[in-house]
Amino acid sequence: MNDQLERLNRLPLRTNLRGLAPYGAPQLDVPILLNVNENTHGVPADVQAAIAAAVTEAAAGLNRYPDREFTELREALAEYLGHGLDAANIWAANGSNEVLQQILQAFGGPGRKALGFPPTYSMYPLLASGTDTEYIVGQRAEGYGLSAESAAAQVKDLQPNIVFLCSPNNPTGTGLGLDVVEAVYAAGEASQTIVIVDEAYHEFAHDGTPSALTLLPGRERLIVSRTMSKAFALAGARLGYMAAAPEVTDALRLVRLPYHLSAITQATALAALQHRTALMADVRDIKEQRDRIVTELTRMGLKPAASDSNYVFFGGLESPHQVWQQLLDEGVLIRDVGIPGHLRVTAGTERETTAFLTSLEAILATQAKLPA
Amino acid sequence: MNDQLERLNRLPLRTNLRGLAPYGAPQLDVPILLNVNENTHGVPADVQAAIAAAVTEAAAGLNRYPDREFTELREALAEYLGHGLDAANIWAANGSNEVLQQILQAFGGPGRKALGFPPTYSMYPLLASGTDTEYIVGQRAEGYGLSAESAAAQVKDLQPNIVFLCSPNNPTGTGLGLDVVEAVYAAGEASQTIVIVDEAYHEFAHDGTPSALTLLPGRERLIVSRTMSKAFALAGARLGYMAAAPEVTDALRLVRLPYHLSAITQATALAALQHRTALMADVRDIKEQRDRIVTELTRMGLKPAASDSNYVFFGGLESPHQVWQQLLDEGVLIRDVGIPGHLRVTAGTERETTAFLTSLEAILATQAKLPA
Repeated sequence: MNDQLERLNRLPLRTNLRGLAPYGAPQLDVPILLNVNENTHGVPADVQAAIAAAVTEAAAGLNRYPDREFTELREALAEYLGHGLDAANIWAANGSNEVLQQILQAFGGPGRKALGFPPTYSMYPLLASGTDTEYIVGQRAEGYGLSAESAAAQVKDLQPNIVFLCSPNNPTGTGLGLDVVEAVYAAGEASQTIVIVDEAYHEFAHDGTPSALTLLPGRERLIVSRTMSKAFALAGARLGYMAAAPEVTDALRLVRLPYHLSAITQATALAALQHRTALMADVRDIKEQRDRIVTELTRMGLKPAASDSNYVFFGGLESPHQVWQQLLDEGVLIRDVGIPGHLRVTAGTERETTAFLTSLEAILATQAKLPA
Repeated sequence: MNDQLERLNRLPLRTNLRGLAPYGAPQLDVPILLNVNENTHGVPADVQAAIAAAVTEAAAGLNRYPDREFTELREALAEYLGHGLDAANIWAANGSNEVLQQILQAFGGPGRKALGFPPTYSMYPLLASGTDTEYIVGQRAEGYGLSAESAAAQVKDLQPNIVFLCSPNNPTGTGLGLDVVEAVYAAGEASQTIVIVDEAYHEFAHDGTPSALTLLPGRERLIVSRTMSKAFALAGARLGYMAAAPEVTDALRLVRLPYHLSAITQATALAALQHRTALMADVRDIKEQRDRIVTELTRMGLKPAASDSNYVFFGGLESPHQVWQQLLDEGVLIRDVGIPGHLRVTAGTERETTAFLTSLEAILATQAKLPA
């Protein structure tokens, strides 16, 4: 591997890539996978059947380029989101990472800067780097909160071209109030800041939590990004999307690769949207498991963050990496996000969640018995 | 639309996008489509069935992220290409446009430049612009030829970071001798130039035409790009790939979006690779239709370029756009590539090719009768 890395660095790589090693965290084969916030409930049988039928139909025409405008899919996504949106407000790509990359290509780039508030989704700085956009780091309060006043003041001060607001935030799972979005948008008036609200996990929010979609009318610099990887259980199908003013959609048309969304991806996403009843029932169950994890971790004396997502970020651990390893030894893979005292776990099925909670409680009991 | 364009330009677009209109050439619904070099012979029934079966199987696991390394697909692509390549030499993405974009992200970017030799594939300058790489224009000889001496001299002079050599070239259809590739590679030694040979249409080359794959050993700056859109009749599935030294593959791992290739795309491509007998028979038939077009156009007094692709570029037309429109009126869509006196046509099925040739001959006869 060192030899390979040496050969890599003899290539004429661009400067900001030199010395980096290829990102290659192994995809571990473990019985219980609660590490990457996938939908643990699987693809419902009727959705599987609908996808199979849709792709079988699409297969006959695969010699032709796909509909570059994926109009039928954009209409279905608009219908799903509601809020008076139509196809002109919608854009999609191969995962929300590609949507965000296109936004950075349109509104970021050399000499421009994007602001994020860590701890937050770890792809933001990588996407900025990949588009030669400067990534600047905003500050959160103790406990990782972000108030409207603080966020707005930072935007006024730093004048970023783009702001990432992740709500519910990854890895903490906590939602941002819409007052934060409103304040950040208003604060970005002078700098014409594009405000991205990343709502990848919005479907898991507690009932009655409003979406930033409600703020779109009259705010042409606001973008709400979503994904079918989580609530729709389609992480493997790679379909991210966003809603915004029609001119934002036009801006992304200037930078997208032609025919970026395959006919099979379009057919798959459409089939899932048309058969979402069982999927939405699974979302309700995942939310119950998520709430159960929060309750149980609190009972164990740990400090779970309030979660509006399908995962729980929890503190109060003396040796998080050791606990992570011990869980892995028991066949339960969760995520060490590198924040002192904390780990993150995806809400599983009832059985998986029970296995995680049981193993964790046993591990904590063992540790408590160790001499201090 | 003008109103929409005005709203677009009020957004804080990056400078190099300002004033551009969204690219939106309509995808016309015409009986005979010979305009974008698709595989007119369709997806063979056994390949359709294999794709349907593979995706049906993959659908059950779509709640999980796909294999980020798409190892099985890279192995199958290496086996298909031969030449002693293995999975470590192979990389793939959603269309060869995305592969090329990743190469530009790794080796191009601000302060760097990419050299192309127009007329050539029209995406090269757009991909350069999208990655803030300067695109510089090389010169061809009269008749659009490119000799080893000329190409090498231009590379020595211009010292580009990246060179695009399209072989067979689009839109002319003519292949480049490997002596050109060798000379360009050697000339790029001092500037450490990455040499991309775009062989999107290589499978349609005349028998015995060597691929630039034969030049890979010992040339770690050489990249050969391919696609499944053409010979494999999978334009709708979006699968482009490349072969190069393993360290080039590692370089692309530094810039690719994680999980960029969906589980469905991987399953589809793999199914087609495993059932390629009928596909390769269709390639042979397309080559016959291509040669027939060259013969017939010559008989009509036109000047078709030598073609190693699934399309024919032909000159000798006084009013190419008028001929293009008259063909369209007859239900035959071909491509006006904007080169004076020339048009480009994709080789169709025998029936489609006959319809094109018959219509064209009638149109030319009508024009000949017009007063000069």
